[in-house]
Amino acid sequence: MIKHALPVTREADFAAWYQSVIAEADMAEESGVRGCMVIRPWGYGIWERIQRLLDDRIKATGHENCYFPVFIPLSYFEQEAAHVEGFAKEMAVVTHHRLIADGKGGLVPDPEAKLEEPLVVRPTSETVIGHAFARWVQSWRDLPVLINQWANVVRWEMRTRMFLRTAEFLWQEGHTAHASAEEARAETLRMLEVYRDFAESDLALPVVAGEKPENERFPGAVATYSIEAMMQDGKALQAGTSHFLGTNFASAQNIRFQNNAGELELAHTTSWGVSTRTIGALIMVHGDDDGMRVPPRVAPWQVVIVPMLRDTPEDEALVTYCRELQQALARQSALGEPLRALLDLKPVKSTTKRWGWVKKGAPLVIEVGGRDMAAGNVSLIRRDRLYRADGKLDSVAMPRDALAAEAPALLEAVQQALYDEAAARLRTGITPASDWAAVAAHFAPEARNPGWLEVQWARPTGVALDAVVEKLKALKLTLRNAPIDQAPADGTCVFTDAPAVERVLVGRAY
Amino acid sequence: MIKHALPVTREADFAAWYQSVIAEADMAEESGVRGCMVIRPWGYGIWERIQRLLDDRIKATGHENCYFPVFIPLSYFEQEAAHVEGFAKEMAVVTHHRLIADGKGGLVPDPEAKLEEPLVVRPTSETVIGHAFARWVQSWRDLPVLINQWANVVRWEMRTRMFLRTAEFLWQEGHTAHASAEEARAETLRMLEVYRDFAESDLALPVVAGEKPENERFPGAVATYSIEAMMQDGKALQAGTSHFLGTNFASAQNIRFQNNAGELELAHTTSWGVSTRTIGALIMVHGDDDGMRVPPRVAPWQVVIVPMLRDTPEDEALVTYCRELQQALARQSALGEPLRALLDLKPVKSTTKRWGWVKKGAPLVIEVGGRDMAAGNVSLIRRDRLYRADGKLDSVAMPRDALAAEAPALLEAVQQALYDEAAARLRTGITPASDWAAVAAHFAPEARNPGWLEVQWARPTGVALDAVVEKLKALKLTLRNAPIDQAPADGTCVFTDAPAVERVLVGRAY
Repeated sequence: MIKHALPVTREADFAAWYQSVIAEADMAEESGVRGCMVIRPWGYGIWERIQRLLDDRIKATGHENCYFPVFIPLSYFEQEAAHVEGFAKEMAVVTHHRLIADGKGGLVPDPEAKLEEPLVVRPTSETVIGHAFARWVQSWRDLPVLINQWANVVRWEMRTRMFLRTAEFLWQEGHTAHASAEEARAETLRMLEVYRDFAESDLALPVVAGEKPENERFPGAVATYSIEAMMQDGKALQAGTSHFLGTNFASAQNIRFQNNAGELELAHTTSWGVSTRTIGALIMVHGDDDGMRVPPRVAPWQVVIVPMLRDTPEDEALVTYCRELQQALARQSALGEPLRALLDLKPVKSTTKRWGWVKKGAPLVIEVGGRDMAAGNVSLIRRDRLYRADGKLDSVAMPRDALAAEAPALLEAVQQALYDEAAARLRTGITPASDWAAVAAHFAPEARNPGWLEVQWARPTGVALDAVVEKLKALKLTLRNAPIDQAPADGTCVFTDAPAVERVLVGRAY
Repeated sequence: MIKHALPVTREADFAAWYQSVIAEADMAEESGVRGCMVIRPWGYGIWERIQRLLDDRIKATGHENCYFPVFIPLSYFEQEAAHVEGFAKEMAVVTHHRLIADGKGGLVPDPEAKLEEPLVVRPTSETVIGHAFARWVQSWRDLPVLINQWANVVRWEMRTRMFLRTAEFLWQEGHTAHASAEEARAETLRMLEVYRDFAESDLALPVVAGEKPENERFPGAVATYSIEAMMQDGKALQAGTSHFLGTNFASAQNIRFQNNAGELELAHTTSWGVSTRTIGALIMVHGDDDGMRVPPRVAPWQVVIVPMLRDTPEDEALVTYCRELQQALARQSALGEPLRALLDLKPVKSTTKRWGWVKKGAPLVIEVGGRDMAAGNVSLIRRDRLYRADGKLDSVAMPRDALAAEAPALLEAVQQALYDEAAARLRTGITPASDWAAVAAHFAPEARNPGWLEVQWARPTGVALDAVVEKLKALKLTLRNAPIDQAPADGTCVFTDAPAVERVLVGRAY
């Protein structure tokens, strides 16, 4: 039996396994500040890769980056009723702008420095960006406005979990304004497609793109779309959302333009975001019982070279041998970018290093000992296939120069293998159910890893939808989305027995 | 007489000119949130370039990026007395985590959701990062710890000014921990040198690197170093700081390690930062009466092509002609990176576009009309030399393909010209003064653009230094820094008549 590198397996306790990956891969840790985490270099390095790749896509679709204030005056929120209703319960509020000594050696907010109007730490920026749009947009010539920002936001969650649900998180939020509803809807779907392709191509994360049901809409939106990924425990994780806001925010914030005919019209707006939550998805989709496995496109280091140093005079030649490899690799291009190769010379035992990089999930780990060097070789470990069939570590000797030449192809193979593995799981994890009894049976308490069900429904609204949501809640289920790419409905609604109008996914979720 | 593009000249009103550059170049604007600005795409694009270039340098010197919480518990601050003393007066304090309806249609912080311990919105992160260092550092093997973060910080300033002094600003803050004071001091100076070279090579901003006097030290630091740039009105702007913190923070936060001999020692820490303030320096060093002039290395677009469209069928051929140029330029490398060329097809009059890009300060603006195209030409405007000697706009016709080939050399020339112009100003702007009467005469109220004085002093401390600071304050002067690169002192202190020990710069400052 294989002795895995993590203290707990996915099978034994998925939630504990998730935390152990984060800890053992040095990705993040609790900060001591309630609900906030410290993102450590390996975790932040993945985020930097996500930023770079997604930012390129956001710019390629014509958007420009800006930066808006972290503080939003309370009055801005009050203008859009559904929006404030959705966020009021979880807002961090700044009330003072100075501290004074409390006379007991400590500090307290200075009562003389109380703000006239409290400021909210942004949970999302529609309101403050809408105010800017109202200044920027006068005529149809000013439209569309296509902007994005990379920022921290705060939502005061009661139960937090690293990456998945933290009081503060990092994200990008795109905000656009258009002259017509059609154009704004097209933008909403364009960015959904950008997210889908980014998730699949860059993160090796197969997803289902679809429309959220009414009860799952962003507060203030007319329509919300998401990409949903399936974790290894069968739960869903919403990995990106795109909202068509109609004229809701434009009318609250007075974003009006003079059209071609000289008449004043309300603009139509959208917003869309992807956050550090995505890193939680990467862990739960790609991680295994030996730790994280980072898809090569988003790996801070794609190839890590570990010389087996022994504190002897021979070490110097070994380091030179390894450095030549590192330099040969750095001259290569992999997956369309310069290859990122690290030579790890930290003063740490080489087996500790090996397992450190395995747990971090570097795609290729190259070990080089004196014997390898004598033979002109290196030993290669591919992180996506760590063990041989006999349970031994799959470390393969190969000529150093062949490795340098083949590394780009190997990285492509790892990226593809991670995607294929996850895609197969998503494909087999979604099954159809045609009546409520089948739904209830599928999600019986003893069912392990039930995945999602695709059901047909009549898309009820209002109180009828509330009843459906309650019914699902009793089984700990939620409506995920109605896939954009779906066959026409041809049955009856599993909730109401009315004729179905579309297919919708049902599952447990993070 | 030249009719310049801005409504006000530097000569007439430098402060109003500064605001007009920001407005006319669409760099930033007031947000409606007290003391906070909106950084618009052109301003944020410059920040993105600064981030990319400085981040490369920070990583090349062995630092890794992390992310720490935006909120810091009050108690963390209370541990370092000098530090909290320095920042308590300008801290934004979060006291509640929920809003409720006030019964009058508005919202108020929910008294039931008052935080047990108020949280400060970080003004700087030594305290929260120190807590992490205390967890990370156990043995000498864990040292040095070399990290950096890109983040927003908040200091509640009473009088704000865009880019220069805003309640919220963006920056990078490096934080390191070392086994010895020597190593930490070396790190402090290494990063000062990184900043100096970055400012001069990338921002075309000549600076003086030196040590701040005691009264200007970062709260809690043992020594603070800065790079100081000279604005066109002769005032100084501190464009980056690097602090040697000794064991002050390590002892407050218990950052201890077991040394080689098995004994517990305090670590020695540093911190260093560069912020969006730098953009204010770029404006006041490089801007002119026609707007901003962005050094090519940090220009979001280095070459902007403006086709003179006339809404006729010939437009199509003109756009193709321009697009070929844009593509030829994009294949070039300039200043060590792929050249950034934009083809501006917005539905705006071409003269408006020309002046828009002049005001934004794109290094090269290429105009192309039907006549240019017929001759295989384009018209080139170099932003660093906008007018000919006769006061006419210096627009030069040249073959399109020659422009494509020469653009990298032209961009290097613009970068160098901006640097040379600023370097000459800094050189002639610093003059020596050997007694107090000369200082007072130099900075007489009627003196225009007095620059800085280099004086010798005895480097007084405590109350003797306070007296010097008061004396200077009466003339609106401050001590800037004692240049690292200076001749040995050979005179008497201009303040105290004691034998001088070093030279220090004195001037007005932002």
